[in-house]
Amino acid sequence: MSIPIHHGDFRVPGFRVAAARSGMRYRDRLDCALLLSDAPATAAGVFTRNRFCAAPVALCREHLEASAGTARAVLINAGIANACTGEEGVHRARRSARAVADRLGVDPTQVLVASTGVIGPQIRVDTLEAVLPDLAGQLAPGGWENAARAIMTTDTVPKTAWAQRTIGGKTVTAGGIAKGSGMIAPDMATMLAFVVTDAAVSTPVLQVGLRRAADRTFNRITVDGDTSTNDTVLALASGAAGNAPIQDPHGPGAHEFFTLLTAVCADLAQQIVRDGEGATKFVVVRVQGARTRDRATQVARTVAQSPLVKTALFGQDANWGRVVAAAGRAGVDFDPERVSLRFGQVSVFEKGRPLEDPTLEARASQVLRQKDIEMVLDLGEGEEEDTYYTCDFSYDYVKINADYRS
Amino acid sequence: MSIPIHHGDFRVPGFRVAAARSGMRYRDRLDCALLLSDAPATAAGVFTRNRFCAAPVALCREHLEASAGTARAVLINAGIANACTGEEGVHRARRSARAVADRLGVDPTQVLVASTGVIGPQIRVDTLEAVLPDLAGQLAPGGWENAARAIMTTDTVPKTAWAQRTIGGKTVTAGGIAKGSGMIAPDMATMLAFVVTDAAVSTPVLQVGLRRAADRTFNRITVDGDTSTNDTVLALASGAAGNAPIQDPHGPGAHEFFTLLTAVCADLAQQIVRDGEGATKFVVVRVQGARTRDRATQVARTVAQSPLVKTALFGQDANWGRVVAAAGRAGVDFDPERVSLRFGQVSVFEKGRPLEDPTLEARASQVLRQKDIEMVLDLGEGEEEDTYYTCDFSYDYVKINADYRS
Repeated sequence: MSIPIHHGDFRVPGFRVAAARSGMRYRDRLDCALLLSDAPATAAGVFTRNRFCAAPVALCREHLEASAGTARAVLINAGIANACTGEEGVHRARRSARAVADRLGVDPTQVLVASTGVIGPQIRVDTLEAVLPDLAGQLAPGGWENAARAIMTTDTVPKTAWAQRTIGGKTVTAGGIAKGSGMIAPDMATMLAFVVTDAAVSTPVLQVGLRRAADRTFNRITVDGDTSTNDTVLALASGAAGNAPIQDPHGPGAHEFFTLLTAVCADLAQQIVRDGEGATKFVVVRVQGARTRDRATQVARTVAQSPLVKTALFGQDANWGRVVAAAGRAGVDFDPERVSLRFGQVSVFEKGRPLEDPTLEARASQVLRQKDIEMVLDLGEGEEEDTYYTCDFSYDYVKINADYRS
Repeated sequence: MSIPIHHGDFRVPGFRVAAARSGMRYRDRLDCALLLSDAPATAAGVFTRNRFCAAPVALCREHLEASAGTARAVLINAGIANACTGEEGVHRARRSARAVADRLGVDPTQVLVASTGVIGPQIRVDTLEAVLPDLAGQLAPGGWENAARAIMTTDTVPKTAWAQRTIGGKTVTAGGIAKGSGMIAPDMATMLAFVVTDAAVSTPVLQVGLRRAADRTFNRITVDGDTSTNDTVLALASGAAGNAPIQDPHGPGAHEFFTLLTAVCADLAQQIVRDGEGATKFVVVRVQGARTRDRATQVARTVAQSPLVKTALFGQDANWGRVVAAAGRAGVDFDPERVSLRFGQVSVFEKGRPLEDPTLEARASQVLRQKDIEMVLDLGEGEEEDTYYTCDFSYDYVKINADYRS
């Protein structure tokens, strides 16, 4: 099963969107976005596990609880993250949600907020209030690509993805926007994603589906192994598709819906890696033949995060030694004598030993010169697998992150 | 208690050492070393936990077991790591140990071996056999600095450290050599350290002391967070100091001996970080005020390994946001509202909030411009602490690791 994914602008029945320039930190560019559901949508969220969770994350959790998992609007600003801002930060997040509620005539607990940008400074609520008439006036069914542009920080391209599938005889659409370039760069980057769908789906099922999708997509990418203070993925479902409501995660339509949601999230997640800070390669690290999925996950994550693997990828070096050595320190007690590795279709390591073939280096290097690279590590102990998506570690990664504030 | 540490060449009663050129991989440089204890020494080892443990590590474990923790000699080669070399690799390690045993007239199980260099290729036993007469002929009480030079790979400087203290009325000496520049760079680098002492100490106490010393020193440094296939720390004790044998880890002399061993290991470990691949800074990450030592360790490790913290250090950027965000994702459920951070003596963050002081940035930047930097993170929840030593992440780290094989 593969769901065709589309990019660019889209429309999802029941939702409107707008983007504007607030000037809170950036000049002369879109820097805030507003999403509106025409009626209360079921809503679900997946948030950072960082102990320093930012004020907007705390407020989203509170509002999703208070509204019993429904939402009308989401306000997003780029430039200031409202993280490490204490009680005052939460107060300001709450005030900006209330301003949206007042402007749109909705319940404040049905307004969610998200911020991305510099850690430390407070957001300016008056600035957000000043731009609200502009945002509200522009709300329209299309305009998601502009919204994706408005929430960028160190991102170099806006990220959108949408797809459709038939569920219970009805066409259901899911569309999303995301931003992120380092998994974290607390100065300037954070991972945010917003997915809207016209599926009729209950809050608990939406939450299960979003958690599952996030675990398999946004939680399977790494640029630098860090987790931001503001990471947020929100999903809103309007029900406008008119499908029989999906109310049981094991019932009719649930599997189809989860697959649709996961496909959109997967595409957005991969766009984040491709736009990783300084990235020149997009790399799929697949670990198969594992006894459990967790073992595969742990090995894939360790390989995908290894600075030595990532610098070798930048150097276009088919350096199998670094890959197996990273796997070996993953904390999984696999049998090294059963491990095999291939780059693309070129086997370089089989059952714990490098292959001895004079043409190997040339053939493997050919794979490493591609922009998209797949490496497949087989543990030879079972049937489970997992995949991480990563990028290489380049001079520009160091440059972006060393020079930013100087 | 601070034990004065000395560098450069040294002598430890009961031991001799030699270095030579085998030409196995490098041309025209010292590339192998031989350590000899005049009589069977008590011996202890701490080894890599990487699942792909190299053949010499496997042989060391086997020989320490078979010899009941005694050793006469250690043969070390640089250039080829004898890792991922299967049964043949172990066979060759065994043959080279036997060659040493034959040449010196000692029991083969009392010969230990260590290798560092490229993963994959086999060591050449005939090459080692050919250089043995030269090595054996040169054995002398001094020459440790040459031995330190012989075991270098990507290291830029040889690493030696020695110290003395009085134990039970006798002067006890401990001297060590080490190599390592990335915690791992399977092509070319590995962490090896060898410590010899004239203390009279039983094997179990030596093993306890070495494990404790390694945990507090070599296991508290990070260049890139990786663990090599060949990491080895060996300690040999001749007993020539004539102290009353230390046979109880809680008995007379044990504490003094452990402190001496730890001081030498700590100095060697710090030399490895200072010589970290591409490093321009030496950074002490101290986490204090933790409820348990493990919690402090976990936070310190996460901060010390964060690519974003390390690139900010390279950029001389007092980027407290990256430090606290790394701490926040360490998997420790501390209360963010109690956390404080200082760079050197400059407090930048107190009880979960950045300090607002217009001179702060300038004063903190001053600290970051030093070559040696200390950052102290206080969790505000207890009395325990731990320290990691790290370096920055520079263009040269990427260059060394991306360009090596091209």
